[in-house]
Amino acid sequence: MVESDMEKPLLGVGNAKHASSYDLSCGDTVGILGTGDFSRSLAIRLLHSGFKVVIGSRNPRRSSGLFPEEVEVVLQEEAVKRVELLFVAMFRDHYSTLSKFSEELSGKVLVDVSNNLETNLHRQSNAEYLASLFPKCHVVKGFNVVSAWALQSGPKDGNKQVLICSNSPEAKNHVVSIARRMGFIPVDMGALCSAGEIENIPLRLLPLWKIPVILTICLFTFFYCYNFVRGVLHPYLVENKNEFYKMPVKVVNTSIPCVSYVLLSLVYLPGILAAFYQLHYGTKYRRFPDWLDEWLRLRKQIGLASFYCASLHAVYSLCLPMRRSARFQILNDAVKQVKLNVSSSWQEEEVWRMEIYVSLGIMALCALSLLAITSLPSIGNSLNWREFRFIQSKLGFVALIIATLHTLTFGWKRAFDRTHYKFYLPPTYTLTLLLPFIIILAKLVLFLPCVNLSLMRIRRGWEKGQCVTFSHVQELSETSSNV
Amino acid sequence: MVESDMEKPLLGVGNAKHASSYDLSCGDTVGILGTGDFSRSLAIRLLHSGFKVVIGSRNPRRSSGLFPEEVEVVLQEEAVKRVELLFVAMFRDHYSTLSKFSEELSGKVLVDVSNNLETNLHRQSNAEYLASLFPKCHVVKGFNVVSAWALQSGPKDGNKQVLICSNSPEAKNHVVSIARRMGFIPVDMGALCSAGEIENIPLRLLPLWKIPVILTICLFTFFYCYNFVRGVLHPYLVENKNEFYKMPVKVVNTSIPCVSYVLLSLVYLPGILAAFYQLHYGTKYRRFPDWLDEWLRLRKQIGLASFYCASLHAVYSLCLPMRRSARFQILNDAVKQVKLNVSSSWQEEEVWRMEIYVSLGIMALCALSLLAITSLPSIGNSLNWREFRFIQSKLGFVALIIATLHTLTFGWKRAFDRTHYKFYLPPTYTLTLLLPFIIILAKLVLFLPCVNLSLMRIRRGWEKGQCVTFSHVQELSETSSNV
Amino acid sequence: MVESDMEKPLLGVGNAKHASSYDLSCGDTVGILGTGDFSRSLAIRLLHSGFKVVIGSRNPRRSSGLFPEEVEVVLQEEAVKRVELLFVAMFRDHYSTLSKFSEELSGKVLVDVSNNLETNLHRQSNAEYLASLFPKCHVVKGFNVVSAWALQSGPKDGNKQVLICSNSPEAKNHVVSIARRMGFIPVDMGALCSAGEIENIPLRLLPLWKIPVILTICLFTFFYCYNFVRGVLHPYLVENKNEFYKMPVKVVNTSIPCVSYVLLSLVYLPGILAAFYQLHYGTKYRRFPDWLDEWLRLRKQIGLASFYCASLHAVYSLCLPMRRSARFQILNDAVKQVKLNVSSSWQEEEVWRMEIYVSLGIMALCALSLLAITSLPSIGNSLNWREFRFIQSKLGFVALIIATLHTLTFGWKRAFDRTHYKFYLPPTYTLTLLLPFIIILAKLVLFLPCVNLSLMRIRRGWEKGQCVTFSHVQELSETSSNV
Repeated sequence: MVESDMEKPLLGVGNAKHASSYDLSCGDTVGILGTGDFSRSLAIRLLHSGFKVVIGSRNPRRSSGLFPEEVEVVLQEEAVKRVELLFVAMFRDHYSTLSKFSEELSGKVLVDVSNNLETNLHRQSNAEYLASLFPKCHVVKGFNVVSAWALQSGPKDGNKQVLICSNSPEAKNHVVSIARRMGFIPVDMGALCSAGEIENIPLRLLPLWKIPVILTICLFTFFYCYNFVRGVLHPYLVENKNEFYKMPVKVVNTSIPCVSYVLLSLVYLPGILAAFYQLHYGTKYRRFPDWLDEWLRLRKQIGLASFYCASLHAVYSLCLPMRRSARFQILNDAVKQVKLNVSSSWQEEEVWRMEIYVSLGIMALCALSLLAITSLPSIGNSLNWREFRFIQSKLGFVALIIATLHTLTFGWKRAFDRTHYKFYLPPTYTLTLLLPFIIILAKLVLFLPCVNLSLMRIRRGWEKGQCVTFSHVQELSETSSNV
Repeated sequence: MVESDMEKPLLGVGNAKHASSYDLSCGDTVGILGTGDFSRSLAIRLLHSGFKVVIGSRNPRRSSGLFPEEVEVVLQEEAVKRVELLFVAMFRDHYSTLSKFSEELSGKVLVDVSNNLETNLHRQSNAEYLASLFPKCHVVKGFNVVSAWALQSGPKDGNKQVLICSNSPEAKNHVVSIARRMGFIPVDMGALCSAGEIENIPLRLLPLWKIPVILTICLFTFFYCYNFVRGVLHPYLVENKNEFYKMPVKVVNTSIPCVSYVLLSLVYLPGILAAFYQLHYGTKYRRFPDWLDEWLRLRKQIGLASFYCASLHAVYSLCLPMRRSARFQILNDAVKQVKLNVSSSWQEEEVWRMEIYVSLGIMALCALSLLAITSLPSIGNSLNWREFRFIQSKLGFVALIIATLHTLTFGWKRAFDRTHYKFYLPPTYTLTLLLPFIIILAKLVLFLPCVNLSLMRIRRGWEKGQCVTFSHVQELSETSSNV
Repeated sequence: MVESDMEKPLLGVGNAKHASSYDLSCGDTVGILGTGDFSRSLAIRLLHSGFKVVIGSRNPRRSSGLFPEEVEVVLQEEAVKRVELLFVAMFRDHYSTLSKFSEELSGKVLVDVSNNLETNLHRQSNAEYLASLFPKCHVVKGFNVVSAWALQSGPKDGNKQVLICSNSPEAKNHVVSIARRMGFIPVDMGALCSAGEIENIPLRLLPLWKIPVILTICLFTFFYCYNFVRGVLHPYLVENKNEFYKMPVKVVNTSIPCVSYVLLSLVYLPGILAAFYQLHYGTKYRRFPDWLDEWLRLRKQIGLASFYCASLHAVYSLCLPMRRSARFQILNDAVKQVKLNVSSSWQEEEVWRMEIYVSLGIMALCALSLLAITSLPSIGNSLNWREFRFIQSKLGFVALIIATLHTLTFGWKRAFDRTHYKFYLPPTYTLTLLLPFIIILAKLVLFLPCVNLSLMRIRRGWEKGQCVTFSHVQELSETSSNV
């Protein structure tokens, strides 16, 4: 029985079981049901990839003007009869209108390319719904992650990956080869039950950025309010000085570096927590708690947010001497100095503090910018794991140390000066130093030979209270651990 | 024993030994006719991908030194006889010298890898010319988009896409599998008639950038001349003041932001025109006029040009306090203030204007820089359509609004001050406000519920004067429209 | 006739018409020996790509908790028996523990995914060692360039290329198709003897950056010391002025532009040397000396180092007016001016010098930034060779010329002023001008019609002392030469 089943043409494509016939049959004809934007773009791209395209329309005469001449636009019933593989480029709500063709469609391949307007709108994914309507068809989900625009702009631009799933391996394979001929990189996602997941992908809205962005906004709001109280409200209430003009630039520029600095330390904290977690439990086979796993995954985004804030801080700082207020202050100071008859106001210590602090700030920004550049997918992909780790982990930590020195030099002796504690509130830079100090200390502890050795052993598979000669050490734990 | 072993399913996968024989025959031998740079690079890359390479040369003894040892360099006649697939790495002018081998070549595959020196130099593409010379050969066009350098630098670098076309599906498929084994992403471009198109690709010179660059240059020239007249010529002629020193920096820095601002509004104008076009005709099935289509396609480039100008404006502005002229002015002002015995020259309004305006400028630049970053292919490709639209459309419009506020704060009350109308010419920032104002107004109109609803309906397929229940609404109009 | 034609091997490659059976058998089961991080990530990715996965463990009960439910974790002996293709995710040291299964493994495919901790640690590559232990198995090397993290993060992120080699074409092909289904881009690297090379790839540490980074550091150290002597030590020793405060910013900012400028000229020098080399020997078929080849290959990295220094120079310069020292100097100058009763200190020439020099600096940075952007892999890959050359070669040379003008304007007349020769040492900018001047002169010589023509002829294949009608001119020398 199986034999005879193998004999009969499967998928309607001649002798599929011999051969890459899919690849070979360059004149393949594929059908598209529907005449919307996506249908049009798909038709054009298929044409350019060497396929013959037949469009099934309810009103061929009207629709044919929308397609290139080489495309045949016929009635749906005709398309359904003539072609063995059909893209269903229609809304889910109208799938049922195809039921009248269920006879003719039997045994054919239907490719569901649809998207939803909202995540998890329906209990069943569109593709599974289509499969339930046409149980005799081979339903394949795919191409929904590609936009009409990306289809039309040709293989040079746009996302190249097409996620494909189906319960029929042969049908899936056919669609995979079509995707490949169109210049996409098909990714096999297994059975049709993955369709729901695939349909949700185009509806994502930067999920990895949600927490880092909220975190950044919260930190900024906190530091801004704090600095507003210290820098604007305090002078107004206590000394009756109007310094509200500092709100748009000065207060922002005192808050942003704090945000950047805290975010940078939050990039390195989870790795340290993970190391101590592993040391404590004496194994790497124990799953991290979910929040730590999530945090480890978000390090790249948090790091980029930190770099973004650091760049902003740089731009704001560079703008300082450009402002009118700076100009007026210099003029007034000059007049004051003339009146006091001071020939030189040079303060060697202040000069040194500023030179060093500016210099360290530039260096920290430089180091961070290298991190940001290697975070670009196209650069990151050209690095191997060792190179990536060297830059992200070593250079990143160097950036944290330089930023700490930058903060310390900025603070100088003022951190211990009581006049700088307005309303008993310490300056923000002293607040932000706490976390990085803990991290640097923890790193030093982890670098102690005994601790380091023990950690290395654990990461290669050793477990506490276990005979070493025996077990998991022998199994591969790549140097490429992601902690 | 070995025989019987071969009989039984190898790798557990049915009849593996008959399979994908192209891919499998790892010892494939391919030939190359010609011994130039491209030939050498091709040979090296083929070797590294596991092929045996035979070079056909007119003078094997001389040429063999140019190739790695593993490559066999033989006489052309011998190569032609021994190998079934030959890369023709020769100039078009010399194709005819191969005619003497037409007997031996019959039935074999010739891969034309040639490029021309100019677009449309010949009536017939090189590959079609080759096919006309050897009608019994299977001619395939391909690999011409890859440079000798990219071939040699290995699969890690360089463009990965290879466009391939041929009239023989089998021959094309063979070349496709060779390209894939070499680590390229082959793209099937259909029949040999596409060869002309493929041959023109390496001759393109940034075609999408032509209009945006010309536009930028024209706008800059206009604004520069305008500002030169107002800022340099007017003081010289009317007040007899020599302010020619402003030409290299100051006048440039008044002109560039105008260019940037106008370009940014030109990014959002075509989308609005398209929306009104669709509203007016009550359908999305009517093609936009060509100029609008072209304009819509160039938005990314225009946007990047705008960002580039905005960055330039930032750098120029930051350089202002560094200049000697700024220093001399402060010094002279200080001296003047002392002479007038003014202890404070502080002008609260001026201070506020500048602080807000600097702050807004930084914000606009930040928003634009996010747009520019997501325009990088590697970032853009990792976003889905919804994310891309969110950043490019929403964030871009926010940038336009912030830029408008930046311009308004810069102008402040001076826009209505008659002394600022030199030669009756208004300041440039008032000129540039016109377009963005129209766009913001139009956007507001489009956001009105009634208009918005009608537009949404049209974009889902609805047409004016048509029964809704009946037709095209049911066909898929992706949320991913590109307007 | 057609039939018999189909019978005979087409394209010289066996029996193409049966095939791709690997791709079709979508329900493939694969095994993994080992339960480390890599094993876990591999299992998850294989599952997501539609494979059934069987893990062979020494202690299935313990390990099964580490894997998703759908994965079967069994004893090693069982896995070895049941599956035909096994990933060996173990350390090299433990390969020998598998010897007891050598009977069951016979004829099966073993995929070696291991990495070493150091380059060339062992005489024999891991894969070759495995093959020597199991001579009856088909050993394939692959997947070692992929990290556990990249495997798990799915096909969207991470490096997509997987280098594969094996002595068994069938086994290699099977692994190639598995890699492709997982969304990777497999690259065939030929026979198993390439395994050593493949195993060294993940151990590389930015090999192309070593020389440029060392070069940059050496140049910086030299210029820094030189400028320290001239700018700090000389005033201290000769005029007894304490200007040590200049060390962190001022001296750095005099040294970095020199580094950037010298590096930029070192990008264009090797191309010119290569051209003169070809002109001298009258052929392009003579290999360049190794150092020149290496230098040509490193141009991109040297150029990026130059851009990085140029950006640093820009940031340092922009920070100058922000420093306390600048403020104190202005204040003191103002007081001095008041005392001397000078109403205007305006120096027209100084003002012009600075305006022009700032303007040229910005332009040079702009040009360099375009070069840097097109060096990003994702941008560079979207350009054809002509576009890439236009930007990198033409625009780069324009940047060199602007940088030269920038340097000349900075120097102005001071270059010839004896008071600027401290300790008989000329200012650094005069030193750095030497190399670019030579390059610009050489470029002019190469642009002379006679020289240019001769060079063009050589690059198309012509050779000195040879009859032109006869030989290599006919062979393709792509316009895409890499010099």
